[in-house]
Amino acid sequence: MHEIGVSRTATPIQVMDEFSLIDCIVSELGSQAKGPWIALGPGDDAAVIAQSPGCQAVASIDTLIADRHFPAAAPAELVGYRALMVSLSDLAAMAAVPRYALVALTLPVADKDWVVSMARGMADAARLTGTYICGGNISRGPLSITVSVHGEVPLNGAVTRSGAQAGDGIYVSGMLGGAAACVRQKHFTVSTSLSLTHVQQRYFRPMARIDVMPTVRNQASACVDISDGFLQDLSHLTRNSGVGAELESKQIPICDGATLNDALSGGDDYELLCTSDKSMPGFVRVGTICAHKHMLLDQQPVSIAGYEHFST
Amino acid sequence: MHEIGVSRTATPIQVMDEFSLIDCIVSELGSQAKGPWIALGPGDDAAVIAQSPGCQAVASIDTLIADRHFPAAAPAELVGYRALMVSLSDLAAMAAVPRYALVALTLPVADKDWVVSMARGMADAARLTGTYICGGNISRGPLSITVSVHGEVPLNGAVTRSGAQAGDGIYVSGMLGGAAACVRQKHFTVSTSLSLTHVQQRYFRPMARIDVMPTVRNQASACVDISDGFLQDLSHLTRNSGVGAELESKQIPICDGATLNDALSGGDDYELLCTSDKSMPGFVRVGTICAHKHMLLDQQPVSIAGYEHFST
Repeated sequence: MHEIGVSRTATPIQVMDEFSLIDCIVSELGSQAKGPWIALGPGDDAAVIAQSPGCQAVASIDTLIADRHFPAAAPAELVGYRALMVSLSDLAAMAAVPRYALVALTLPVADKDWVVSMARGMADAARLTGTYICGGNISRGPLSITVSVHGEVPLNGAVTRSGAQAGDGIYVSGMLGGAAACVRQKHFTVSTSLSLTHVQQRYFRPMARIDVMPTVRNQASACVDISDGFLQDLSHLTRNSGVGAELESKQIPICDGATLNDALSGGDDYELLCTSDKSMPGFVRVGTICAHKHMLLDQQPVSIAGYEHFST
Repeated sequence: MHEIGVSRTATPIQVMDEFSLIDCIVSELGSQAKGPWIALGPGDDAAVIAQSPGCQAVASIDTLIADRHFPAAAPAELVGYRALMVSLSDLAAMAAVPRYALVALTLPVADKDWVVSMARGMADAARLTGTYICGGNISRGPLSITVSVHGEVPLNGAVTRSGAQAGDGIYVSGMLGGAAACVRQKHFTVSTSLSLTHVQQRYFRPMARIDVMPTVRNQASACVDISDGFLQDLSHLTRNSGVGAELESKQIPICDGATLNDALSGGDDYELLCTSDKSMPGFVRVGTICAHKHMLLDQQPVSIAGYEHFST
């Protein structure tokens, strides 16, 4: 994820104690806090979840820090939606079906309205993906949201970063660079979640691509989600697979309002990047995996820019 | 957990980029990053974990914030040890066997020495409990550690907070108040992890009581871990069970160096509090569950003090 930098406006808030705040969150999550495979939801030391026979668990954790990974002044509903969705994108990249999430929230003050809106956005993302938010934790501290996400794959069904082979095509699941254009233009002023521009939609309302899971699971040799930047995420995949890549700039699908550089080096789109020696219906082919270990764009070596947490 | 307040001394540090830092952590975790049930460990979008037939997953998440939940100046090894162990205590409270953990680390600077020592302490706690740390995330921000922990129980084998019945005995798994005495005395100066005093040992080197799991699973009607304070955690259990409690102060096992108040209201000991209508070998009986919904200590109503994140 790319860093952003904005300041927050102070507004009057209703503060609550920790346990009442948790009750408000669980109430706002509603049917997304308990589901068919959640044997015990929020309110105990831990949640209890049914496991599917013959499946493996797939698990990932991500932290989003205010005014670094999201604008603290953004509508809380969008912050909550995005926090869950970007974590679920890691499950999509493994071809896993989402099952449940745990959320650790750190708040400077127990602001009821903000927290309830945040939970509403998170419940929205949960509903769209069939995920249940069955546990969590609240602490006082600088505003941040850590989400651990948990899915399942059939035995040996996970698609990793390390299976790409020379000759495989390189594919992306959609338009790139829109979210990066939003970050580049610091286009963060949002009044309601219903009035987003096209690039704001890409930044604030990403969709973890679990919809293409059958294609990824059946056709892809390797997969990664594009969170840090297309070139950087591709470099993780090629390094893990011990291969290189040749790309053609004219084949990169660039989002309306974005530049080629946004598409190559911007992250935050949460599209999937796959390799395959088969066809990938619904995906766009942008290059070919090579036995040499270089990354070439239009036959020229390309320098890899992308997000790195301690680079600035 | 109780809040603490200390300041940190600046020391020269070796900084690294995010991906090198992750390599150092994984290397330090060594055999605790991969294990018999970890099909895919750190280094991909998500980890892949085998699930045991006939078992349910048990999951919990906790955040520890520097100079709030642990002294930032404490040896990093103790910070890492404690971060994992206090999270695992929630699994012990459900009578679950630990399987794996995910760690989200937020760091102001990419301080290699601190991070490697922290990972060493965490690996130590993982080894003692049979846990594998198979995934994680690093972000730049105020120092904090979020750990999600994952265990298993046989189908319907989880012990919850809601099963206590009138007439059940109330039991604790060990001496209380030692960690609270350490916090009360701000006894946080530690040169090495080998020179801890008795109360420092209780604060910095708690042991999640997974060793008493068979007794808890077979004998207890309800269980909670003592993290916020004995009375407060008991009140969670009695509220969830719809009962009350009668306690006798002379039966409360008080740790050397601690007061009755430390034992009643201090948290951080991570002992277990169980109810049972059977015997609980290895536990100390401190009272009886009652049909009335009050909490009485030596026949007097007692006010419940304990940790609440937004109370100060």
